Order: sequence, then structure tokens, then C-alpha cells
Amino acid sequence: MPPGRSRGTSPVSSEFGLIRLLQAQVARPDRQVFRGIGDDTAILKTSPSEWTLITTDLLAEGIHFDPARSSFENIGYRAAIANLSDIAAMGGTPRFMLVAIAIPSTCSTEQIRRLYRGMMQAAYPYRVSVVGGDTSASQRGLFLSITLTGIVKPGQALLRSGARVGDRLYVTGTLGDSHAGFNLLAARRRPGRPVMRPAQTRWLLARHHRPSARIAEALWLVKHDLAGAAIDLSDGLAGDLRHLCEESGVGADIVTASLPLSPACRAYAATRHLDAQQIALQGGEDYELLFTVPLSKQSRFERLVIRTRFRFTCIGSITPKRSGLRMRTDKGATEALPMTSYEHFLKPSS
Amino acid sequence: MPPGRSRGTSPVSSEFGLIRLLQAQVARPDRQVFRGIGDDTAILKTSPSEWTLITTDLLAEGIHFDPARSSFENIGYRAAIANLSDIAAMGGTPRFMLVAIAIPSTCSTEQIRRLYRGMMQAAYPYRVSVVGGDTSASQRGLFLSITLTGIVKPGQALLRSGARVGDRLYVTGTLGDSHAGFNLLAARRRPGRPVMRPAQTRWLLARHHRPSARIAEALWLVKHDLAGAAIDLSDGLAGDLRHLCEESGVGADIVTASLPLSPACRAYAATRHLDAQQIALQGGEDYELLFTVPLSKQSRFERLVIRTRFRFTCIGSITPKRSGLRMRTDKGATEALPMTSYEHFLKPSS
Repeated sequence: MPPGRSRGTSPVSSEFGLIRLLQAQVARPDRQVFRGIGDDTAILKTSPSEWTLITTDLLAEGIHFDPARSSFENIGYRAAIANLSDIAAMGGTPRFMLVAIAIPSTCSTEQIRRLYRGMMQAAYPYRVSVVGGDTSASQRGLFLSITLTGIVKPGQALLRSGARVGDRLYVTGTLGDSHAGFNLLAARRRPGRPVMRPAQTRWLLARHHRPSARIAEALWLVKHDLAGAAIDLSDGLAGDLRHLCEESGVGADIVTASLPLSPACRAYAATRHLDAQQIALQGGEDYELLFTVPLSKQSRFERLVIRTRFRFTCIGSITPKRSGLRMRTDKGATEALPMTSYEHFLKPSS
Repeated sequence: MPPGRSRGTSPVSSEFGLIRLLQAQVARPDRQVFRGIGDDTAILKTSPSEWTLITTDLLAEGIHFDPARSSFENIGYRAAIANLSDIAAMGGTPRFMLVAIAIPSTCSTEQIRRLYRGMMQAAYPYRVSVVGGDTSASQRGLFLSITLTGIVKPGQALLRSGARVGDRLYVTGTLGDSHAGFNLLAARRRPGRPVMRPAQTRWLLARHHRPSARIAEALWLVKHDLAGAAIDLSDGLAGDLRHLCEESGVGADIVTASLPLSPACRAYAATRHLDAQQIALQGGEDYELLFTVPLSKQSRFERLVIRTRFRFTCIGSITPKRSGLRMRTDKGATEALPMTSYEHFLKPSS
């Protein structure tokens, strides 16, 4: 999670209000802090040859996960991916992880072991070392806090604030799958509702339980110096595009027909009479990357990308701030992008 | 808190059992990891000129703090000190802090603001920068996770494993005050019980609510290369001495008459008909340092220390492992050190 992001509902969770309040209280000038609160991770100028990224994330039972709906392996896996994705959004290489956990008396040792196994499965491919943690009792509910560090070469980090008017907007992978998968978990089978193909159901559940962190894609963008700005999609495209544009002081136009949708997500939307593009815009926790490519680099980007196995889709462009955030719909109409961001979790859904 | 320390009670909180279980699952060889799970902080060989310390700590309402007994400022202050104390125990300079918080709907914005104010008051003297965080809702109870980094020169960190037979054992400050202060908070006034002087009561409460992190003392020990091993006293002297001796593969003899006691703690013990030395041995959360000085350095240590304002007390010495952990009592008897470690919190107390 980005430093200072707020999730869920509580009297103080008005995201930017609280963040700004705390930023004002805690910020102090520090020549080693290149970026503090406000991006996907902090950036620390820890040595002349290597800068450090660091991010922390607190996940609460009943807010971010529900053991009745997810296995402990999957809860651990997704928790680790959420942090790895923040390092990806900065163009960094993940490095060290610390795991603090508050365990209610209802949890068994075997469940905690499975939670760790899931985290390790997510972290292992990136050679992340777990170097510390804390274990506590909890009077009610499981709480999991992960801190992840990463490294990036000086000046090479991808910032939210790097978008310029005219840049092209790209996303990795497909959008909305995690939200669809979550709703499949939550839904009761209703008689008469069209049934999805089992393979598609499995695919959406896998996208929800086992999302990918786009580390390789981000490192490739950094290596070829192709991206202007980046953010990972945890709150949903509409919400995270808004964060990126606010930090860059720009607007954006999205072409809804270009949003990358999986066949399974389309099928899910069709069976529920939902708008798949809406799910892609507002469904959270895809952990795909949203990034900008300056117009001057677009042809080189397109030439290089065909040599890779990566899936990037151009979904729009950056506009002046006064234009705001807009979407061009299939019917050719231009509408304001929906304001609502993805709200974490455990809300009634169909 | 040290990486991997477990606190409170739950089916999985058997400290070493769980820690070893998880260590076995998560440890992987990494040439940059000088110390992983098992000391007060991890030590990372992040650059040739400077190594990084990192520690994380998760505090749960009802386990580590109770807003009915402590102000939010004090809860924040103590949480920050617990982490600063871990950096002190390694002989490091604290550097960057990340704060993740899960907020129940019963908490007001003003309370959270006060919590941060307390953290900042603790961190400010050490020029620690808050560079990130996460804010989440909580269905039940306030949870606070702090990650703190520090720096140390390569090879200069104080380890738990550095104690050798013959070393002298020292502690900073006075012991047992925090436990006495906590019990004063928890206690109902009983008719007929002797009353403590208000100044002493205030002093013990301050020691509980606003403990010190012994950063300056630790940096002085490192600067003069005087200490062999160190640990901070969060579980209580008996428990933390056990950790230090286990990591060093040694035993220890404590002289109970030498344990540094404040007049207020003595007065508290007297009014309750308690043994003040017992409180000093087993009371937790003093955040004093326990460290060893090799015999060959003791005279230089004693010569240098008189030029400082620090309070160090020699409380015993390191013995061979086969001798175990012993204490020499006032009556000249030698007894085994009590096994019981400080259990966090909110238990019935007088």
C-alpha cells in the first residue's frame, strides 16, 4: 500500500483529509528523503549508488480479508502481492520483508503457518528475504502488517507525479478480474441465473486470490527509460488514475472501449447484466500497473514491447488539468470519470 | 520489538516455538543479511560504509495498551519508544519511521491526532523522519504497527550473541518503575493501604507512560567500543537476560542487591508489601539497556563513564552455560533466576 493510503470506513477514513492532517504533523525536512508520504512507497537517498524504497501495509480481518472466504495461504499471498505491487509501481526491485501479526485465540498454529506459506509463495520468485517481524495476541480478529523494502538506481524511480500533458496512458494485464472473482466468492447461487463456465470461474477466483505483482514489467520500463509516471491499481482504475493526476497536476481522457477485459470478466458481467467496463473502471485490487509513456517515446515503446511477453494496453492520454478526468464511451459521448473509488471489502454484493 | 518476539496469550504465542517454526519457513541465504530474525533488529549490509537496522512492532488494543488507562499521546509515545529502544539495543542511530494504523469507528480524528503527536514527541529528539504509513478501518479495536530503520557502521552493531564468560553485566537507569506505574494505574485505592507521596506516584506513572530510549547511552558504548552484547529490557530483566544468554551460549549470575531501584519503586513495593527486587527482575517495558562489558575493558569503562551523565549499574557477570541463570540473594543464597517472563498486559493486578 502507498504510504498514507486510507481504506475502509471509519469516522477518520476520509482519505486525503486524514493523510494531509498527518503529513502536516509529521513531515520534517530531511535531505535523505526524496519522497515521503504521498507516493506508492517512500524513496530514501540512502547511498550514492542505490536508493531505498520502503512501504508498509496493515490488513485487518473483516476489512481486507475474510477467512471464511479465503484460505490462509491466499490471504498471505495477496498481502505480500499488495506490497510487492507498490515496489513495482516505483520501478524498484523488492528486497527485504518484515511481517508483524496479531493473532486471535481462534487461530491455530497451522493456519498461521499457512498464512506464512502464502506470503512466501508470493515473495519467493523475487528473492525477497524475510528479516524480521513481531507476533502478538489479538483480542479480536487477525491483523497483518507487512513492511517491504526495495532498491532503485538514483533518479530512476517511477513517480506518480511524472505525468505530462500529451503522455499516453497504459495499463498492464486485464482489469476488473479481482473484483469479479471476489463477487463470485461472495455470491449465492441464484436459481435461473446463467452459469459461467467452470474454467472462467476458476480463472477469476485465481485472479482474486493470486494476483500478480508487475515487477518484471516495471523493471523493463525503467531499464528502457520509457515511463513518465506510474501507480499500481489497488483502489481501481478510476480512483488510482485520480491519484496519479492529482500528484502530476494534470487531467486525463480514457477510452472505455480500450479497457483490457478478460473473456472471463466479460462473461461474468454478461451473466449478471453488469457493465464490464464499469467493473474495469471501479473494481479494486487488480494490482496491475497504470503508467504513462511520453509521446516522444511511444514509437520506441511500441517497437520494443513486441519483443516481450508483456501485455500493455493504451487506454487514453494525459490532458491539461482544467479538462479534468473524462471518459469517452462506446457511443462517442464524453463523460466525467466516476468519482467513487473502490471501497474495501466485505460489503454486501450480489 | 525484536523481530519475531511474541507477546500476550494465544494458542500460538509460545514464543520460541512459533518463532522457530516461522524462521525455518522463511529463512533463505542472503549475503546482504548480517542478522535476520532473532536479535532486537535485523542488520542489513546495505552499503560498504553503512549498515541498515530495521525493526517492526504491532501493538493491539487490549493487549499492549488500553485507552481507558492511557491517553492517546502516551500510547503513541510508548509505541515509538519501544521501537527506538530496539535501535538503541543495537547501538544504532534511528532514522526513518513508518506508521500503519487500523482505526475502529469508536476513535475520533482528534484521538488519532493525539496518538501521532505522542509518537512525534518521542521521535523528534532523535531526528527521525516519518516517511510512510497506512491507514485502515478496524472492525474492533485500535491496532498500531510501527516500522523503524536505523544505521550503524559496519561491524559495530551490538548483538545479543556477543556475551563471553567473565564479562560484566550492566543496566542503564532503574528497573521496575514501568511495572509499578502500570499497577498504580490499574489499582483501586484500598482503604487502610499506606499512601505513596504524590511526587513518587507521578514519577512512576511518567516512567510507565513516557519511558526513555537509551539511544545516547548505546551510541556512547559503541563510540568507545566498550560493550560485548546488548538487549533492551521490554520483557523484564529475567526474560531478556535469558534471551541474551541463549543467543550468546552462556550463563549469568545476578546480584539482586545490586539491582538499581528508584526510591519511588521501593516506596511502591513497601506500600504493597511486595519485593522491589522481584519487580525489578520481572517487571516489563522499562526499555532500559542490558549490556555486557568484557573484563579487559571494565577499568576503561569505569574511567570514561564518570565523565558522562549516564547511569550504569553493574548487576552481575557472565558465567559458563552449564551454570545457567542464577541470582545471589541478599541472604547470600544462590537461586535459579525465575523462569517467568513478563506477560503483556491487562492482566488482573492488585
